Order: sequence, then structure tokens, then C-alpha cells
Amino acid sequence: MIKGLGASFGYALGKVFVLEEENIIEKITIKNVKKEIEKFEKAIDSCKLDLKDLIDTTKLTIGLEESKIFEAHLMMLEDPEFIDKSKELISSKKVNSAWAVSSVSKSFIEIFESIDDSYLKERAIDIKDVTKRLVDKLLDRNNEIYNRLGVIIVANDLAPSDTAKMDINKILGFITRNGGVTSHSAIVARTKGIPAIVGLGDDIENIKNGDIIAFDGNSGQIFINPSEEIKNKFIRLNDEYLEKKEELKTFIGKKTISKDGKVVEIGCNIGSPKDLEYVLDNDGEGIGLYRSEFLFMDRKKFPNEEEQFLSYKTVLEKMNGKPVVIRTLDVGGDKNISYIKIPKEDNPFLGYRAIRYCLKNPDIFKVQIRALLRASNYGNLKIMFPMISSIGEIRQAKTIIEECKKELENEGIILKNKYEVGIMIEIPSAAIISDLLAKEVDFFSIGTNDLIQYTSAVDRMNQTISELYTPFHPAVLRLIKLIIENGHKNNIWVGMCGSVSGNPELIPLLLGMGLDEFSMNPSKVLNSRKIISKTDAGFINEKIDEILNISDAFELRNTLKNIL
Amino acid sequence: MIKGLGASFGYALGKVFVLEEENIIEKITIKNVKKEIEKFEKAIDSCKLDLKDLIDTTKLTIGLEESKIFEAHLMMLEDPEFIDKSKELISSKKVNSAWAVSSVSKSFIEIFESIDDSYLKERAIDIKDVTKRLVDKLLDRNNEIYNRLGVIIVANDLAPSDTAKMDINKILGFITRNGGVTSHSAIVARTKGIPAIVGLGDDIENIKNGDIIAFDGNSGQIFINPSEEIKNKFIRLNDEYLEKKEELKTFIGKKTISKDGKVVEIGCNIGSPKDLEYVLDNDGEGIGLYRSEFLFMDRKKFPNEEEQFLSYKTVLEKMNGKPVVIRTLDVGGDKNISYIKIPKEDNPFLGYRAIRYCLKNPDIFKVQIRALLRASNYGNLKIMFPMISSIGEIRQAKTIIEECKKELENEGIILKNKYEVGIMIEIPSAAIISDLLAKEVDFFSIGTNDLIQYTSAVDRMNQTISELYTPFHPAVLRLIKLIIENGHKNNIWVGMCGSVSGNPELIPLLLGMGLDEFSMNPSKVLNSRKIISKTDAGFINEKIDEILNISDAFELRNTLKNIL
Repeated sequence: MIKGLGASFGYALGKVFVLEEENIIEKITIKNVKKEIEKFEKAIDSCKLDLKDLIDTTKLTIGLEESKIFEAHLMMLEDPEFIDKSKELISSKKVNSAWAVSSVSKSFIEIFESIDDSYLKERAIDIKDVTKRLVDKLLDRNNEIYNRLGVIIVANDLAPSDTAKMDINKILGFITRNGGVTSHSAIVARTKGIPAIVGLGDDIENIKNGDIIAFDGNSGQIFINPSEEIKNKFIRLNDEYLEKKEELKTFIGKKTISKDGKVVEIGCNIGSPKDLEYVLDNDGEGIGLYRSEFLFMDRKKFPNEEEQFLSYKTVLEKMNGKPVVIRTLDVGGDKNISYIKIPKEDNPFLGYRAIRYCLKNPDIFKVQIRALLRASNYGNLKIMFPMISSIGEIRQAKTIIEECKKELENEGIILKNKYEVGIMIEIPSAAIISDLLAKEVDFFSIGTNDLIQYTSAVDRMNQTISELYTPFHPAVLRLIKLIIENGHKNNIWVGMCGSVSGNPELIPLLLGMGLDEFSMNPSKVLNSRKIISKTDAGFINEKIDEILNISDAFELRNTLKNIL
Repeated sequence: MIKGLGASFGYALGKVFVLEEENIIEKITIKNVKKEIEKFEKAIDSCKLDLKDLIDTTKLTIGLEESKIFEAHLMMLEDPEFIDKSKELISSKKVNSAWAVSSVSKSFIEIFESIDDSYLKERAIDIKDVTKRLVDKLLDRNNEIYNRLGVIIVANDLAPSDTAKMDINKILGFITRNGGVTSHSAIVARTKGIPAIVGLGDDIENIKNGDIIAFDGNSGQIFINPSEEIKNKFIRLNDEYLEKKEELKTFIGKKTISKDGKVVEIGCNIGSPKDLEYVLDNDGEGIGLYRSEFLFMDRKKFPNEEEQFLSYKTVLEKMNGKPVVIRTLDVGGDKNISYIKIPKEDNPFLGYRAIRYCLKNPDIFKVQIRALLRASNYGNLKIMFPMISSIGEIRQAKTIIEECKKELENEGIILKNKYEVGIMIEIPSAAIISDLLAKEVDFFSIGTNDLIQYTSAVDRMNQTISELYTPFHPAVLRLIKLIIENGHKNNIWVGMCGSVSGNPELIPLLLGMGLDEFSMNPSKVLNSRKIISKTDAGFINEKIDEILNISDAFELRNTLKNIL
């Protein structure tokens, strides 16, 4: 048994495939420079298409953050310095493009690696990754390894794009010599659910091609050519996993109903109409959060009213009368859109973002509101404003809706006026005055990611203090309870679209608090429906005061586990 | 009448003194290079001393933020590139040092001004300012203008150091051609209380040396050689101001007691033992916040236990039994200390700061706790932990106190054990679970600056969204009420050391809520005591529910005004 760093939870048992590095690129003198440059340009274009696909897939199946890795790669393929230097080398030295690219890339990498800055060092890895992609394309190398059936990949390093390419139904797991648990590859592995161990070091040399190994991506333990006993243990664990997956399928088409008969709704969080397939596959009962900002990304200027209208209409029509909550443009904070100029801020999470930006830019905001109002004729639309911190902001936003309605009516567009207007509650001030805010809107949706962040004053991206960021903090749970109560007292429904709503440990508590709608990543719908089916909402409800009087988050979490 | 930008509130009536720019510096060939370089070095040293004085005075009378401007100037005088280039020019060209400095400075300024970045452009102004200081010193120019009795300064530009030098009892106000309301000079003027108008443009040419002018630093209106009527109006306004100042002196030595007999305490916020003079002058009843981080600033390494002990002991002894709340090291956020390495953060206000840093660096924290415990024998000490967000942090901090106590006892140091341990409530999560936190400590002190910032998710330094940062937000006021109630239910006292506690509009409300201690800038003590003497706490208390049910901050503020 050897041990590395557990980087992605899960058990794997299978045959090893050692990935050899294909470092050597032959230097070949070419005759036709023009043709070689054409080949080079074609390869660039083809790689860009691949990357765009990869970005879309990653956004859909993994997440926005992870997709940004590949957006950085895409930008490198558009970097004139990189491109021009390569072309220059091809024509001045009459060399093959693969060699030229790899030579230019090396000089870039050397510069980045020589600087003692972890950010720039990470960029060197990105350059390597994108260069490999380009060289593979130029040399017509095949990457089918990532789709081999049932192997465990063993390699010195894996680039994030390698990890993203892995087919989770075929690759059993991976182990690398280098890398840390916070490396991009490890993050992608975790979000895709591929078991992984990283940072094994020289011990990796004990693993040979064709070995059978069993490993535990949690503890980091690796068994090389394991005993029958260990093999059987891993087979059992794997079977349990598959069984669970099959069981969940039985929840398709069923209502979401608790053991004691409380019916709630499970909606999905999506970024674009393309994600709908995934929602329908997992039987989402609606869209609890359509992040409209995705429509604004990866382009050079604002989408016009017609483009926006068509996207919103598509989603509404495809959801066929089921509720669709569309959140208005949520830009700023950690979400940058190239053509939207937000001044550099010391604390962007506490800055000029979302509704704050929209209210100061009514010309931009009105285009979206008009598109939403027009789309509202085609389904069950709920317009949602993010980052509301005060009542004045809602009133301003509602005034803009009224203005747009009048404009549209004057233009002869007939609106059915069958839509709701709601707000995200993700700022403590909004939670605390939710009794007053509830009188202004049709619904609340709790955004837990930001709510935890502001309530605890902890940047959720900051690793140094990550232990302070927890949904089990009694203050966070008290605020959630308060928001739900204030909503119900004013006869409006209350949903949740932050990541807490899909947290198996917290779903029963939220149900007990009376949450009406849970919105989450589509992959979590069926398991959440199962959890709810096994929960006695009334029983939990009686325990809430006791739970919320526990002062410490760890204790609270344990008590909650014991109660369930 | 002409009009500029009102930059600093107040009325001024007086004779104009137009400040001519002394731009021309003669180039003189010198014979003795060595002597000229000595002269140059002496001038540098002398300017540094001046700046250090200015930094101290600014910290004491204006504020920490403002003093940083001059710390940047001090650093420039230590910049080897600046110094060496000047010396080189003196020796290579055999020129006088004033000309050399001004020539080197110009090349620096040109570089900074050529870059389209507002931050760097601001730095160019700083270079001009520090160069002027140095040249004035080298040419033995007199700056007594800033202390002339009763004039209004009119100039093209004023450097922040010019503004800082102005004696508020002598200079009536200033007007500049250039500059904006957020320029450093305007900020210094506001905090010092000197009426000012900036950005007058070419209209400034209408004002001549010796003119009598009257101006209103709020509206930006300037009356040149005004009518008797206007003069009388300005005289009346000025008289009212002086009268108010005299009246306040009658509150020295009096208890702080409301109209209906409720006694509270007004303490002061200080940064160092030097500030005590100011506290005693203004009859502060204690120290409600001693910002111990000042002890750690402007030096190259951590102050050792003995140094800290002596500072704390001095304050305790000088306060002669009155309460002294010392806050443990509050580093991070916008407070940087050169030798404390905090990794670069995307959102430092939501980051690794204050108690978070201390708990992860017990070796550093324990030095401070030991010094505090030892000092506790010499007065009425209250140890306060900043940025508490969870109960675990208090428990950890208290454990460290216990460890230090044992260590000291083992070393034979006898402690009287007459101190209190409390926390700042400045994070929403702490406010929300203040019922639970109150069981762990002897007191709360509400830190409103951060509490508003986190509750409303608004960086208080961010100008773009400054309208969202307000203490009149009902959520903020509800939290303050909750904290006070939870403290009292658990029989602990509740104070406030954020800037809200000195806000004349809010003092009556806080009194009505039952706040026990108000801590503020020493200059605000007497006026606050006066406000409290005129407030009926019981009457306000009855109105609180009504006030806190107003949803909008502006409405709430107006209602509050009407009630009082």
C-alpha cells in the first residue's frame, strides 16, 4: 500500500494505464512556408472550436468557475504575441509548425516559471496545456485514451483539459505524481466525481502499466495488485454506488413530497437554454434560477432585446408552463464581462454589482426588462432581482418594469401580464427587513452563497479562512428561518437557489422550516427528492428552536445528524 | 457671486490672500559638491522630522487614513532612486541641490502623469507636494502664510500637506482653482473643519489679493466684496458657531445624564498614549476603544512584550481607575502593517484579519495577551477581541488568556485578576447570535463601521455605491437594538465604538435603546453629552418599534428628526 493526497472522493478498482509523456517533437525543415502557416492557422481554429465546446460542456456539467480555466486557454490562442512569434519562427527558420509552437511556448513558460509568484506559475501550467492541445492537433495525435473503457490513468501531471475530457462512465479514476488538492485538475475531478489521488511523488514508480490497483480518493490509499479481500471490498463499494444511482431513477416523474405529506417543488439552476435537456432528464419541476448573465458572456457587446427575448422565450416554452425564475443581470463581484466596465474595486464582493449596476445603467437594464416582459407571454415567468439590500432598490426596479410596460403597450405589444416579480435575499440587511420587503414582491429566493459570505464576513473564495464559511452557523440558519417566516406571514412563497438547497444534510431542516421551493444543480434533483420523501417535516419543525439555540456550527451539525 | 464645488462645510468671511506659486528655481553652479550634498542630506533629514511630526499630529487631530498620505511622502524621501539621482545630478553637473531635486522630480512626475491611471496621477501630486517641501527647506522659504491671522487662502492648488499645516484658529478657509471634492486636500479640510471650495476654474481670477469675500463651503457660493447684509449674515453664522463652542465647555466635569435621569458613559477612541491629553481636555469618562494596532505600525518588527506592557500600563495609569477598553491587534482589511505578511486577497474586508489572524498566530497573540494581563494590575482594563463571527473564536481566545495567565503565574507574576473580557460586535453573524455570545463575555462593544458594511454588503470606501452605506438602514438599527437587548438579558453592559456613537442624529435613538456606553473621537464628547442632556430616553424608547418598522432609510431618518 502506498499513499498520496486524496484529491477527489470515491473508490476505484481497475487496470492501470500509464500515460507516457509525448515530449519529443521532431524538428523538420519544411519547403512550403505558406502551406505550413495555413496548417498552423487551421489547427488554431480547430483548437478554438474544441475549447468553445469544452467551455460549454464544462459550464453545463461542472460549473462556471471551472469553465474559466478554458476561457483563459482560448484567450492564449488569440494572443498575437504567441501567434506571431510562432509564425515568424516557421517562416524565418523554415521549420514545422509543431516544433515552432512548442519552442515559442517553452520561452513563455520559462519566463513565467522564473518568477516567484504562485499565480504566474499556475499560468505556466495553462500554457503547457494549451500548447499540448495545439501540438496534438498539428501532429494529429489521438486522445482516445481518455475514453478507454475501465482504466485508471497514472501520469506525472494531468492538465485540467485532460481531466475535463475524461468520460466519467469509462475512466475509473486517476493518480498523479505532482499537483496539490487545490490544483485545477483536482477541482475538475471533484466536480465531475472522478476519484483521484495527486502528489504521490516518487512512489508512483511502483505502479506499472497493466497493474491492478484499488484506491480510495478520500484517504489517498492505493493498493497495488490487492488481495481478493480488498478487491471484494472495492467491488462492494462500487455496487452500492451503482445501486443508489438506479434507485434514484425511480423518483423520476414523482411529486416531491415529504413522509408526512408536505409537497414542495424542486427546480433547477441553469445558465442557458442548452442546459434544459439536463433539467428534463433529471425531472426538474421548474427553473428556480436562470442566470441571465451567461447570455452576456463570451461576446463583445450587449445582447440586444431580440436575442434576449428569444433566449427567455425558448426556456419558457420548453418548460411548458412550469415556473421559470429568470434573474436579471448579475455582473460584478467575481463575475466579469469584458465590455461592462466596472472600476477596479478593493472589495468587489462588497461593491458595484448586480442590481446596483443595473439601476445606475437604466438603458442597459431596460433592454433586459423589455425582453423579459415580452417573453412573459410564452410561459410561467418570474422575474428576480439579485443583490437587493434595501427597499428603495426594489421600488426603483419596479418603476423600471412599469416604464417598460408602458413603452411596450405604446408600441402595440399586448402583454398578458401573467408574471411574478421577486427578489433574491442574499444580503443580511434584506433578510433582517424581509417582513417589510415581502410587502413589495411576489416571492423570495434565498441566495445562500452570498448570504453566508456577508453574514459571516468571509469571502467564500478565501482559502485562509475557509473554516469560517459554513451554512451550519446558527446565525445563517436563523436568518433563513426568519426569511421563510416573514414570507409566509405576507403570503408569498419562499425558495432557495444557493448551494445549501441541494445539501443533503440541510434539506430536512429547510423542509422543517417550511421552504416552498428548492432550486439546485440538475444532478442533485433526484437525490434531494428521495431525501425529502424520507423526511418528517413536522417532526423537524418541532426541533428547530432547539437546533437554532446551539451556538457552535460543528455542534449544530452533529446535533442535526443525530436528530435525523 | 461666483460658484465652485463645495468641498468642506462651513462659512467664511474675510480678507483674501492669493498664494502665488513659487515655481521658478534658479539653476546655480556650485563649487563645493561635498558641501552641497551635505546640505541636501540635512534638508532631507529635516523634512523627514517635519513629516513625522505632521503624521503624529494628523493621526491625533484628523485621522489615521489622512496620516497615510504623509507616510507615503516620508517613504518617497527614503526612495534610493530619488535620492541617488538627485545627488548624482548635483555632483555631475555641479548644480545647486534645489534645482537638482526639482529636475529629478519633474522627470518622475512626467512618467506618472503620462500613464492613464487615476491612482498614478494622484501619486504625481504627492511627488509635487514632497518636492515643494524639500525645495522650500533648501531655499529656506517661509511657510508662515498658513498661520496668518484671519485670511482666506486662494490658490491654484493646495497640497494635502499645505492643508494639514493650516491652523484652524487662524485660517478662515480656502478656495482653489483645481481639485475635486474627493481630493486629499478636500478630505483633510473636511476632517479639520476648515471651510473650502475647490474646482472654481477660471472664475478664480475674479478674486484679487486683499478682496473681502464671504463663502459657503456647502453650496460653493462665493460673494466677492459682499454687501453689508451678506456680511452680517456670515458674521451671525460665525457667532453662532463660537457661542456653541463656549456653551459646550460648561459640560466639562458633568455626568452624562439624560433629561429623564438615565446615566450613561462617554468614552473616547484613541490610537496611542499620546492621545490621552486630548481625552482629558474633552473630559472623556474612559477609553472605549484603544486601537492597539497603532503600536504595531511605523516600525520594522513586532513590539515586544515589555514595550506593549508599558504602553498599556501608561494608559491605564493615566486614566486613573476609569475604564480602558483595549482592542487586541486589528490587522488586515484596509490596515496593513509592513512586517505582517497577509497574502494578497480579492476581498480583504471579508478576509484574513484581526482575531482571525491572531488565532492562527498564537505566538504573536500571546505576547499581546501577556502584556495586557500584566498591565491589568495598573487600572481598570477591559480586553476586547475584534471581528468575532462565531462562538468558537471567543472560546479559543479565552483559552489563550488562560494559558497566558498560567504562564505568568508560573513565572511568579501575581495578577490581581481584575479585568473584563469582551468582544466587538461588528459582523452580522455575531449580532444575530448575540444572545448566545453574551453568555461567554463581560461586555459587547458595537463596531458600527463594519456592521453597516457587512449587513448591507457595501464597502464603506467604495464611492460608486456610497448611497447604500447608511446607519439609518432599518436592518442596521434593528441589529443594534437586538445586540443591546441580548446583552442586557444576560446582564452584561453594551457599548459602541463605531462612528455612529458620535452621530448627533442617532445618539437619542441609541440612548432610547438602552446603550450603556458611547465611545467616540474626543472632539465629540462634549456635544454628545449636551445632546444626551436634552434627550428624554423613555420617550424615545416608546417610539422605537414605530421607527424600526419604517422600511426606507431616508424616511426613517426624517421620522427620527421629526420625533426629536
